[in-house]
Amino acid sequence: MNAWDQSVKSAVQSKRPAGPPPAAPHDLDGEPSYPAGTRSVEGRLLARLLEYLGNPPLEFVLWTGERIAPAGTAVVARVRVSSRATLLGILADPQVRFPDAYSEGRLEIEGDLVQLLETVYHSGRRSPQPSPVRRLVERLHRPHVNTLTGSRENIHHHYDIGNDFYSLWLGETMAYTCAYYPTATSTLDEAQYAKMDHVCRKLRLRAGETVVEAGCGWGALGLHMARHYGVKVRAFNISHEQVAYARSRAESLGMSSQVEYVEDDYRNISGRYDAFVSVGMLEHVGVANYPALGEVIARSIGPQGRGLIHSIGRNRPAPLQPWIEKRIFPGAYPPSLAEMMQIFEPYDFSVLDVENLRLHYAQTLRDWLALFETACGRVREMFDEKFVRMWRMYLAGSIAGFTTGALQLFQVVFAPRDNNDVPMTREHLYPR
Amino acid sequence: MNAWDQSVKSAVQSKRPAGPPPAAPHDLDGEPSYPAGTRSVEGRLLARLLEYLGNPPLEFVLWTGERIAPAGTAVVARVRVSSRATLLGILADPQVRFPDAYSEGRLEIEGDLVQLLETVYHSGRRSPQPSPVRRLVERLHRPHVNTLTGSRENIHHHYDIGNDFYSLWLGETMAYTCAYYPTATSTLDEAQYAKMDHVCRKLRLRAGETVVEAGCGWGALGLHMARHYGVKVRAFNISHEQVAYARSRAESLGMSSQVEYVEDDYRNISGRYDAFVSVGMLEHVGVANYPALGEVIARSIGPQGRGLIHSIGRNRPAPLQPWIEKRIFPGAYPPSLAEMMQIFEPYDFSVLDVENLRLHYAQTLRDWLALFETACGRVREMFDEKFVRMWRMYLAGSIAGFTTGALQLFQVVFAPRDNNDVPMTREHLYPR
Repeated sequence: MNAWDQSVKSAVQSKRPAGPPPAAPHDLDGEPSYPAGTRSVEGRLLARLLEYLGNPPLEFVLWTGERIAPAGTAVVARVRVSSRATLLGILADPQVRFPDAYSEGRLEIEGDLVQLLETVYHSGRRSPQPSPVRRLVERLHRPHVNTLTGSRENIHHHYDIGNDFYSLWLGETMAYTCAYYPTATSTLDEAQYAKMDHVCRKLRLRAGETVVEAGCGWGALGLHMARHYGVKVRAFNISHEQVAYARSRAESLGMSSQVEYVEDDYRNISGRYDAFVSVGMLEHVGVANYPALGEVIARSIGPQGRGLIHSIGRNRPAPLQPWIEKRIFPGAYPPSLAEMMQIFEPYDFSVLDVENLRLHYAQTLRDWLALFETACGRVREMFDEKFVRMWRMYLAGSIAGFTTGALQLFQVVFAPRDNNDVPMTREHLYPR
Repeated sequence: MNAWDQSVKSAVQSKRPAGPPPAAPHDLDGEPSYPAGTRSVEGRLLARLLEYLGNPPLEFVLWTGERIAPAGTAVVARVRVSSRATLLGILADPQVRFPDAYSEGRLEIEGDLVQLLETVYHSGRRSPQPSPVRRLVERLHRPHVNTLTGSRENIHHHYDIGNDFYSLWLGETMAYTCAYYPTATSTLDEAQYAKMDHVCRKLRLRAGETVVEAGCGWGALGLHMARHYGVKVRAFNISHEQVAYARSRAESLGMSSQVEYVEDDYRNISGRYDAFVSVGMLEHVGVANYPALGEVIARSIGPQGRGLIHSIGRNRPAPLQPWIEKRIFPGAYPPSLAEMMQIFEPYDFSVLDVENLRLHYAQTLRDWLALFETACGRVREMFDEKFVRMWRMYLAGSIAGFTTGALQLFQVVFAPRDNNDVPMTREHLYPR
């Protein structure tokens, strides 16, 4: 550990338990937090931006060697900006240009990337009540449309870039969704299996029942349900690569008669099942399609079934971080709980249980990032350095999203209104 | 058990496990389900109403002796209508006039009142998607306004009719909210204490902490928290009778320094607390006041607290049953989950846990109704026969509301977005 690492580490340790940073001083006419000295124009602009963001504990080093850092505050990371053009881009559109510049190597970060991004998430917070203008902008913002064709393109963009790549860092289950850590020492793989059991228990699966799964990734949950709960599963997914992988996995385990993987859109689900489950698909559905999803569920499970939806969410409606939407997940939108109700309300579903697992997603992402860093030489060979840096930024930013509460993870259990065959307590979820 | 009871009972037993009744045949031009025979005009109108409601398995006996019952169906209850005026009233406005006629003795019910009302709730169901007109009506419907003064009047109407009356049938805790039955054999009192423990565990109360309670009823929860979890409680309530009772109870237990009961509106809560709790008050707040409630909570618990709201709710927005709103709970409105989010979204609260306890409320109400029936001679002396019948109708109708899913009971745990000191799992709620 070098001196810089040491100083970052001690700054981090002394700051960590103190909770969120103090409220941002938005009064730009007050005493400047960034002493001007002999400051360039670019340096002055950057200092202004940082003051506006509430003086995040970051040091910027410009291409000229000029340093901009808040006075009297230990910093958690240092950002080296390689050119004037890069800085002006960041000043113009920090949310997209900052991660782009990092991906393209026009910006270097020394210190903890996750910490830096947590700092930025905290600093970017505004007053508790979003302004009417911001609300309007958020309402008008519509991510890439998820028509049947649009969905295929959006999903292909992210999930079909190679099973080999994902197998480097997702662990043995290839589950690409929030895991569930029963204890602080659970490993990633243990936590992924624990998540599957948690979901199966919430659905109270009984041997001989049938389950339809909407958006099945590489197929681990369907296999787990069939092998350990004796149910028959039909799992839908529009990612060609994932379905191929899932089918060959089921075949090699001799489970093909128990788990059928269908390469098709959730809107084309047909048949009647005892339970509906969807883990990590809702983020790609789009609020406009929620009533259609509700209709699919209602016709799939009838008046006596039950269902579970597991999805990234928000505390209140807001667009996805624009860089993530642009570079990583086109068409994605994590809903607020109220927005999710547009699935359930029109069909009179009763919401039985909502659990928020956001800190489990932070831990899952930490485990993924650690595996990714171990494998990044291999990833560089498969793609290039830019891809490695982009993916690192995405994983680190997602950790920061969940630890700062910008993102939530909701598991929602529901049943049709008429179904009184629901458990009285949730004790069965916690067997000992 | 007489022959009628016997026939109702066997009809019930043969029907019970079959799930909800079949969908209502809305085609009024089809084969009539009620054979006309020599039917009076009133009888024909009633038959039409019952066909429209999907032929509920009920027999009506008119003042003339004329009987109207669905062909070929065992009935679960018999309704005797005493006069033409009574019947016309019911035909004109069944939701209000039917229970009014029962309260006033102009209508007798033989058989199981709860079963009858469950039948009516099921029959009254419409298509899954409410019509735009109904949605508009529901949006426009506003119950009695809950201004500071209006709230006092509305609460006085229900809660200040006498502690002696409520003590006859609420059990020893005087808790007038949904209990929590850990096992099928739990008694009412056990279940009320279990509910308090469930709430305290969800809030993870630690000795020495402070709690503010909005709407404390007769004060049992505050006392329980202070005695068993070592916290200091400030509990707000605008019911004069309830506050007087709660204070004297705290005094007799020597707990006055630990639990302070304040006769004031939740909007006047001041001070900073570790936790906010409200059990059974939200029904009286009104959706328009939810952001104000959110503001009260935000300023009460700051960035590191947590809270719990326990409230009757709905699967989707709908006005309260109009007779209940008119005669029992003026100003009351049970929200949908999406509506509840209007408390949390503006202040960026993270919803951590939602549990639906509707079947527990059905059981609670069954226990209350049984105690009420035992004490109804005493209630008749305190009030009159009309009051006894009105209250019976209210308790039985509420059971039917919860068993048919017309009503839900949501317990919602939340914390400010910045609070990462939240439990990773809910296992601590289920100690063994």
